[in-house]
Amino acid sequence: MQATRGELSFYSIVEPELRELERRLKDVGRGGHPTFQEAVTHLFSSSGKLLRPTLVFLAARFGPGHDRQVILNLAESLELVHTASLVHDDIVDRADLRRNVPTVNATWSDDVALIIGDYLFAKAYALAAVLPKPEVIAIVAQTVFALCDGELEEVIADAGLPSEREYFERIELKTASLYAACCQGGAILADADPEHVAALGAFGTSLGLAFQITDDVLDLVGHEDEFGKTVGRDLAEGMATLPMIYAAEERPELAPRFVATQKAADEVRELLRAVRATDGVERARKRALALHDDATRALDGLPARVEREALLEIADFVVSRVR
Amino acid sequence: MQATRGELSFYSIVEPELRELERRLKDVGRGGHPTFQEAVTHLFSSSGKLLRPTLVFLAARFGPGHDRQVILNLAESLELVHTASLVHDDIVDRADLRRNVPTVNATWSDDVALIIGDYLFAKAYALAAVLPKPEVIAIVAQTVFALCDGELEEVIADAGLPSEREYFERIELKTASLYAACCQGGAILADADPEHVAALGAFGTSLGLAFQITDDVLDLVGHEDEFGKTVGRDLAEGMATLPMIYAAEERPELAPRFVATQKAADEVRELLRAVRATDGVERARKRALALHDDATRALDGLPARVEREALLEIADFVVSRVR
Repeated sequence: MQATRGELSFYSIVEPELRELERRLKDVGRGGHPTFQEAVTHLFSSSGKLLRPTLVFLAARFGPGHDRQVILNLAESLELVHTASLVHDDIVDRADLRRNVPTVNATWSDDVALIIGDYLFAKAYALAAVLPKPEVIAIVAQTVFALCDGELEEVIADAGLPSEREYFERIELKTASLYAACCQGGAILADADPEHVAALGAFGTSLGLAFQITDDVLDLVGHEDEFGKTVGRDLAEGMATLPMIYAAEERPELAPRFVATQKAADEVRELLRAVRATDGVERARKRALALHDDATRALDGLPARVEREALLEIADFVVSRVR
Repeated sequence: MQATRGELSFYSIVEPELRELERRLKDVGRGGHPTFQEAVTHLFSSSGKLLRPTLVFLAARFGPGHDRQVILNLAESLELVHTASLVHDDIVDRADLRRNVPTVNATWSDDVALIIGDYLFAKAYALAAVLPKPEVIAIVAQTVFALCDGELEEVIADAGLPSEREYFERIELKTASLYAACCQGGAILADADPEHVAALGAFGTSLGLAFQITDDVLDLVGHEDEFGKTVGRDLAEGMATLPMIYAAEERPELAPRFVATQKAADEVRELLRAVRATDGVERARKRALALHDDATRALDGLPARVEREALLEIADFVVSRVR
């Protein structure tokens, strides 16, 4: 991870904050139950892309406020919210691997993963509760509700292929809300102009949507060794994504096959070939690129500073990444 | 429930607060996902004993502060923490019924119950975060960590019978911490004397321990129609409780049979008879009574007021209840 981060310039201006955040994350289990400590080590020993905290740190540079510990509290809180929701989602999805690392449920059990997620949410809220601005505390809470709404919708949705609108509602709740919270929350805590807060929020929402669509595209056309996840997983699980929704517009007979669960490996391979033969992937990529453009346009009103350049680079990275 | 509450005088002095709390609890799902709203209706349409919020309201009468909405926020927050942890525990315990009502996991699914618990925790924290005293926010967070510690210990503990000490550690984390938080938190929010806060906290801890031991005794000797739970459930699941620990001191050969999981109904009946033939139940009852006495003694330093009488009645109720 350090290597990856080193290659991407947008990380460099907030590198000190990221290092401090990594130290804090590894320390989250201190004083807790030994199994919680082990799970924390497992989850945070190789840190992820840390895109979300990077957004918090960059957004906070657009205001005059400079209380570094307060900004770190928000970044840590939202990263813990994100991690907790992944730990719980992996139970629901019966996932064994996430980014090539065994999940908590696979390493211990569903029961342990349930409790580890509860701990992480509790740590996240304890950090949020001491933030000096009630509106930022409310943003953290709203983000968790959005994550729950999105996950619940996914779990109880009927078995058919969702519409494009339903897909966007879901990824707005499950992904974009957290990106928006990082950008808005960081800016508010730093006392940024309300206009700049709104612009950063809009940037975060479009960025999050573009990120998720790109992730869904990579699940269908990525290279496993680069992507760090099993390609075709969404298909295997019957989790319908935007490229599939578009592919089914061309070939409606694929729809029931996309959403069927527990597919055999042969069927997944055949469907992968079928999707790739449609324009579905290309159309989804174009939507991601259009959202990328929305995100970058949202930054037009921000002062031309190195932090704005970094946010633009993040937007480029999000839609061009291979993993 | 209203009927039950009507018969017990300790409820009467805080009846207006309890009614307002019930209204708030039924309203927790408003604006949320339809399935979350249904689950909230399911969970709060017949309210439980509401002992914990009653403790918050009574404890808050020992200070000069009278911000009713603030006290209600704490009571609601802690009741939601309690409910969320039950919803998650019922997944881990594969429980179908709780107090004769189908559990969320049995009514919907484990996946839905996982998310419903996350929502309830989120609502609980959102309420706690706006409390005017950081030390009370910290108490709520510490309580959730304690619940997680206790539940995790239960899940990862080795298969043997726990020691008496281990049993007490576990019920202190899983039950008594919440009772103590109700008493302390209510008193702190009302600006009670630090001495009175400490006394109420000690009362809550002893009361919670007495409550849990009584619950564990009732699981072995209660009448199903009065107890509202399946008698012998702890035995059936291999969940070792204090009466079993004492019974195994008399008859060590029972220990492995107590902790064996997924027992047949015949084996449960036989073990019920075996436990009842030892002094285990009686010794556990005596421990509960001794803790009752600790609880009431903790109140000695409080002003002799109707609220102190009510707390003493709650202590009596907790060890004498049949369900």
